Amino acid sequence: MVQVELKRIIITETSDQQVIFLKEVTGDRAFPIVIGSTEAFAIDRRLKGQPTPRPQTHELLSAVIEKLDAKLERILINDLQDSTFFARLVIRHSNGKTVEVDSRPSDAIALGVANNVPIFVADHILDDVGS
Amino acid sequence: MVQVELKRIIITETSDQQVIFLKEVTGDRAFPIVIGSTEAFAIDRRLKGQPTPRPQTHELLSAVIEKLDAKLERILINDLQDSTFFARLVIRHSNGKTVEVDSRPSDAIALGVANNVPIFVADHILDDVGS
Repeated sequence: MVQVELKRIIITETSDQQVIFLKEVTGDRAFPIVIGSTEAFAIDRRLKGQPTPRPQTHELLSAVIEKLDAKLERILINDLQDSTFFARLVIRHSNGKTVEVDSRPSDAIALGVANNVPIFVADHILDDVGS
Repeated sequence: MVQVELKRIIITETSDQQVIFLKEVTGDRAFPIVIGSTEAFAIDRRLKGQPTPRPQTHELLSAVIEKLDAKLERILINDLQDSTFFARLVIRHSNGKTVEVDSRPSDAIALGVANNVPIFVADHILDDVGS
């Protein structure tokens, strides 16, 4: 696994699909992931720390994890099949138990970006699509 | 608190805002809540049990609750201020602890509808807007 960071988010208002770029923390390889507009706006808003009058869905998810005495520890982008990326949330409960939950990368990043949760990508994905 | 059920969901494809109707289980009073399209589509899809190739945000939220050994027990619509409804998720952990999390009604219902989680509305809200 290689640590990456969210390098760029490109939002085209007229499109339903947006693009985020993840880049190696200790290298130059980067790759794009196409995500939906709702998730792109959520990432952008949380990245900028823009508050909303009511909790949006990703804020609700963060609040649920916290209220259940758990913490999002890291995000794994662990697979790529037919141009679809697969991710996992790694969540640690205060009782020490760690659980992994299947997620789209967009939800995982929207959730993690507000708290600088580290993102890791499987080597074979970077070898495949990183440039 | 009065138990209500999701009676109707009206989706207008050309609009960003959609409407759901909640109705008393043991009475005739009902009221509408205006919600966003993303949440309306999520409710509609989960109501119909339509699977998606990848977990959408509300499915992710359900999975996180389950993986953390907890269960969504009920939804409370507990306040109405300036035409905005306020809701709470009541989540019970397997250790017996119950937590409440502030939510928009749309997220709460999208989350609860797949598992027939009961929805309760404060009396003063029904008295105010129920007809």
